[in-house]
Amino acid sequence: MHRIDNPALLTDLYQLTMAQAYFHSGQRAPATFSLFIRSYPSNRSYFVAAGMSDVLDFLEQFKIDSEAIDYLSSRRIFADDFLDFLKEVRFTGEVRAIPEGRLFFKDEPVLEVTAPIIEAQIVETFIINQINLQSLIATKASRCVHAAAARAVVGFSLRRTHGVDAGMKVARSSYLAGFAGTSNALAGQRYGIPVVGTMAHSFVSSFEHERDAFRAFVTSFPNHSILLIDTYDTVSGARTAVDIAREMTARGQQLQGVRIDSGDLAKLALEVRNVFDEAGLPEAKIVGSGGLDEYDLKTFSDAQIPYDSYGVGTKMGVSADAPWSDIAYKLVEYNHRPVLKLSTGKVSLPGRKQVLRLSDDHGYLIKDIIALQDEQVTGAEPLLKIVMAKGKFVAPLPSLEESRLTFLSEFVNLREPIKSILNPEHYPVEQSAGLQKLHLKVEEQIRRTH
Amino acid sequence: MHRIDNPALLTDLYQLTMAQAYFHSGQRAPATFSLFIRSYPSNRSYFVAAGMSDVLDFLEQFKIDSEAIDYLSSRRIFADDFLDFLKEVRFTGEVRAIPEGRLFFKDEPVLEVTAPIIEAQIVETFIINQINLQSLIATKASRCVHAAAARAVVGFSLRRTHGVDAGMKVARSSYLAGFAGTSNALAGQRYGIPVVGTMAHSFVSSFEHERDAFRAFVTSFPNHSILLIDTYDTVSGARTAVDIAREMTARGQQLQGVRIDSGDLAKLALEVRNVFDEAGLPEAKIVGSGGLDEYDLKTFSDAQIPYDSYGVGTKMGVSADAPWSDIAYKLVEYNHRPVLKLSTGKVSLPGRKQVLRLSDDHGYLIKDIIALQDEQVTGAEPLLKIVMAKGKFVAPLPSLEESRLTFLSEFVNLREPIKSILNPEHYPVEQSAGLQKLHLKVEEQIRRTH
Repeated sequence: MHRIDNPALLTDLYQLTMAQAYFHSGQRAPATFSLFIRSYPSNRSYFVAAGMSDVLDFLEQFKIDSEAIDYLSSRRIFADDFLDFLKEVRFTGEVRAIPEGRLFFKDEPVLEVTAPIIEAQIVETFIINQINLQSLIATKASRCVHAAAARAVVGFSLRRTHGVDAGMKVARSSYLAGFAGTSNALAGQRYGIPVVGTMAHSFVSSFEHERDAFRAFVTSFPNHSILLIDTYDTVSGARTAVDIAREMTARGQQLQGVRIDSGDLAKLALEVRNVFDEAGLPEAKIVGSGGLDEYDLKTFSDAQIPYDSYGVGTKMGVSADAPWSDIAYKLVEYNHRPVLKLSTGKVSLPGRKQVLRLSDDHGYLIKDIIALQDEQVTGAEPLLKIVMAKGKFVAPLPSLEESRLTFLSEFVNLREPIKSILNPEHYPVEQSAGLQKLHLKVEEQIRRTH
Repeated sequence: MHRIDNPALLTDLYQLTMAQAYFHSGQRAPATFSLFIRSYPSNRSYFVAAGMSDVLDFLEQFKIDSEAIDYLSSRRIFADDFLDFLKEVRFTGEVRAIPEGRLFFKDEPVLEVTAPIIEAQIVETFIINQINLQSLIATKASRCVHAAAARAVVGFSLRRTHGVDAGMKVARSSYLAGFAGTSNALAGQRYGIPVVGTMAHSFVSSFEHERDAFRAFVTSFPNHSILLIDTYDTVSGARTAVDIAREMTARGQQLQGVRIDSGDLAKLALEVRNVFDEAGLPEAKIVGSGGLDEYDLKTFSDAQIPYDSYGVGTKMGVSADAPWSDIAYKLVEYNHRPVLKLSTGKVSLPGRKQVLRLSDDHGYLIKDIIALQDEQVTGAEPLLKIVMAKGKFVAPLPSLEESRLTFLSEFVNLREPIKSILNPEHYPVEQSAGLQKLHLKVEEQIRRTH
């Protein structure tokens, strides 16, 4: 069963046990939680914000239904008065977020939730789950697009994404970060993303001869045929594709191109390009795929390997070199009292915050300042915007296409060394004087009392 | 939006373009596809079969609804006669599978689908997606359980699994592989898995004093309190927990234990155990968590670090050291003609198959033989069983509890060197004489004609 009608119970049990203890101890004041990533995975120096729209939909519809209440009751750990209360809980708080498609950096809150503490607490798990996955993938995908150096990149990862929700969100997040399309037909339907794909090895091998397979395919798709030429021998497959292309030319049609999915992809692209060029078919495109990631794409771009576009799959779809981020949703203020934790390696920054971004006259990003919510810096752009108030959207969110443009137009303004595929430089992120002062003050207070 | 009402279109577009080309070229005969994993990720020498029940539910309900057909039609790549045909497609084939919870090895088909080629082709993406994720996680989880050396292991990964479907499937697959429970409340409700969890750092820091937080919690949960003691200082937190435990004892209650989630987890466990033992509280349990995986658990087990149980999160939930497997669903027979592909590094084994398993008198697994479907070996157990015929379940599947027992009872019979957390030995898997002969024959045939 893949279907989840109501994800309100898709939460860690401890969110609910804490909620009961808050409830019984009268702990009901407003709390602010900050969502941020504590460190960069290897070869990363930025993140792409993604996943806000799913989070906000979830918050607006939040309601623990009666079946879920019955289930919790059956566990015999919760008190009846709390369960009666839980039935009525809705999300009534405020959300401030960095818009989808914008860049954000280590330690910067990408989202802040302010709500009565029980509400803000029990939505933690879902919020982290969605922003983590979608930002992780948008970041990975942006690296692939960057490494491909203006060649189109499409996503083929659905079969190996972690489940069906990831399959959908990976398609969306990678399109947000500049992919040209996805193989995922349902993502095409739901998100309006261009869908791509033509044939697999099984199609070729179901025919006794490769040539028959190619012929059958172009007969069915005279205008959309990319022939997969590596089922038996890639160069011989390319020659067969040339024959097919000539048959098509004679009918007034044109073969789009071929795909190579295995073997020495750099060497084969050069050989296949040669086969087509010598046959007078310079317009036939070559698509590369098969275990590719941004590291391969960079190698091919640097060596000017003649691929026209790439299909990237598994390694992008699971962010294979960084399949998780050190993302956290931390209480930073309770009942107007700024708080932090001191756990080793997990210290958090107290208080409600704003992220301020400074750019130069050409639009290039200079540095960010993590500040307290009401601090201002002349010429700096505040990135966290109110997107939800009293549990309702304050305005419609940007469309996926708009967010994609937001990403593309900011990404060109991030300097190359910070986008480097290998060993990128760090982008300067400072903490404001106000934040530093508050941090010291709260830490001192805690050290005194614990 | 996390909700997917009908996943039939959750497929790669090329499954549908191939289907149209099959349709137009009259390619409608039965095909058999084998699902297998081509290689072991690092430090793996076995896999745990999981995900069959989701695959079979999907197949039984398969139907492309009219909205999806309208969407495909709007793409202007498909022919109307094909779309009319597609509306009526249901899965009418046969599925043979290794039951959930059984072990399987490299190159062994864990599932075989035989159906008219269009049906068998368009379900590929979903089948791979689910079996890949669930087997990957069941395998990772089994390693955690093994490394914990009889201490209970529970799953805390929901916040960082890749999306909501993964959150559910990770909880199920890890329970299948011996986990004692999950933090995922919805997985508890849906799958009947024990749910666990008490408090997070935010609960502690929402109170001005750690002691007040602990007191509020045990007041609300006198019988289910594990206090999180590392928010400020772990050993001082342990001392405060001792005070709370004594207050509880005076009321005739008992503190269950404490959890340590950061810092030097080995050193802190020894110190905290000491605090409790000296306070005359040997029954207080210590739970370890915070970035743990099987490698840490093995280290702790070897050093007899006094943890009573573990919460493992992110690294298990994304199978961090192996976030994908080289799983493939390959055409092995079309219209009774065995087929294979020769793509570099991706050669497949032709024909319908059976996996035969030989055990010794004590039940220990000796070796497996990948054979043709009708081959038999005296004393060997055939693992692939018919689970679906003519598109319907042939019998109810085992329950999750039954499959969990299946796993546990087979896993004890796998020799230690093959289960080793680091550099495991390979388990012997042979190919039958019949399969080898067929392989050679088909390969020769292809080399002659291509």
